[in-house]
Amino acid sequence: MKNNTKVNAAILIIGNEILSGRTQDTNTSTLAKWLNSMGVKISEVRVIPDIEMTIVDTLNFLRKSNNYVFTTGGIGPTHDDITAKSVSKAFGLTYEIHKEAFEILKAYYKTGEFNGGRQKMTWMPKNAKLILNPTSGAPGFNVENVFCLPGVPSILKSMLGGLKNRIIGGEPILSHTVNLKTVESEIANSLSKIQNQNKDVEIGSYPFFHAGKLGVSIVIRSENQSEIDHCNSQILKFVKEKKIEIVDR
Amino acid sequence: MKNNTKVNAAILIIGNEILSGRTQDTNTSTLAKWLNSMGVKISEVRVIPDIEMTIVDTLNFLRKSNNYVFTTGGIGPTHDDITAKSVSKAFGLTYEIHKEAFEILKAYYKTGEFNGGRQKMTWMPKNAKLILNPTSGAPGFNVENVFCLPGVPSILKSMLGGLKNRIIGGEPILSHTVNLKTVESEIANSLSKIQNQNKDVEIGSYPFFHAGKLGVSIVIRSENQSEIDHCNSQILKFVKEKKIEIVDR
Repeated sequence: MKNNTKVNAAILIIGNEILSGRTQDTNTSTLAKWLNSMGVKISEVRVIPDIEMTIVDTLNFLRKSNNYVFTTGGIGPTHDDITAKSVSKAFGLTYEIHKEAFEILKAYYKTGEFNGGRQKMTWMPKNAKLILNPTSGAPGFNVENVFCLPGVPSILKSMLGGLKNRIIGGEPILSHTVNLKTVESEIANSLSKIQNQNKDVEIGSYPFFHAGKLGVSIVIRSENQSEIDHCNSQILKFVKEKKIEIVDR
Repeated sequence: MKNNTKVNAAILIIGNEILSGRTQDTNTSTLAKWLNSMGVKISEVRVIPDIEMTIVDTLNFLRKSNNYVFTTGGIGPTHDDITAKSVSKAFGLTYEIHKEAFEILKAYYKTGEFNGGRQKMTWMPKNAKLILNPTSGAPGFNVENVFCLPGVPSILKSMLGGLKNRIIGGEPILSHTVNLKTVESEIANSLSKIQNQNKDVEIGSYPFFHAGKLGVSIVIRSENQSEIDHCNSQILKFVKEKKIEIVDR
């Protein structure tokens, strides 16, 4: 489904392990690309610790200032998994056993293995909608515009497919990249002029050092392909004038 | 230098390329580990777009609620590099050519190559303190408790050494990890009891799937080694009782 207004989302990464530097977040990039393809732009990302008050306050701010919020982390069986409880509090909903989630996990585990830790993963905000987990059983959940996903990247990825029809995006955000064998300072002025003449397009300039090559990637982003094409032709014009080589990355 | 109170910092990642998912941030992990080793704990991380008002507002909030703020990105020569201008505005300082930075870059580049784009990198908040860049010349800068670093990870890393004596940390945050061949739900209750009895210690539980091994890393974090040792012995006790195997990762 699509609509014509801009649609934005925030990503809320919950977990001390990211803040300590122990774990490298990769879910931002996964979620951003997936959401972009549906016309949802990420307005901001926040990484916060496993502290209930912080989760409640941050979520209550983000869910009001964004069309969607995606949280990652904190929905497992251990004491530091407090996302479901915090989301319940943020929405003023009872934190209780979710019958459907309970049935799913009861069927998933062998008799006798559905222990207390595993049952904790069925506690959710009252009437939450489940997000099915084809990898490891335990579902995520969705309350209004907030979607709670696990922190383990492979599990998170496997759950996105089932979510697609709950997201109403705008026009997909298109992008085009030109890689140049140059340095940023050589093209800064020309690029600046093009950006000033094309305010609705987002032109980014990113130096790269990759496989022994040094260069600059120019990324043009817009919902409108013809505007991208227009900027691209203006860029190719100065590239030709300055005799800059276009390269693969 | 050290003091005995808790010292915290926020990381502010400035750049559309992270929000679009095009670039994977790795600077958070680098900065977090480096700051942790000096007794500075990361309270939160925010990723925001290249929009001046957003940078100004977010920075003004974070610099008042944290002992330090580290920004990454947006200090290069192109139109989308607006960190220095935004930081000037946040502090109410004139945005002007920094004489020392100008001399450094004039000497760094060959005659005739110190063009407009490169000169842009010498514009900073009035009286900013430079953060020298041993990799590519262009310095970062520091105003009060805010430190502005580049987005390119290898350059950022090379600039941290010169910054060390400007950070006054608390007690270094120590950590100990125990890797177990188990699943989280098997140890959730035991771990929860230990956490409840040791409120000053941060115990994290992180499932891993690594090189064909499936397990759980338990991470104990504290400024106090004896508290870590105490928790560790309690963990090893239930590990032995439950006949769980300790593994390398």
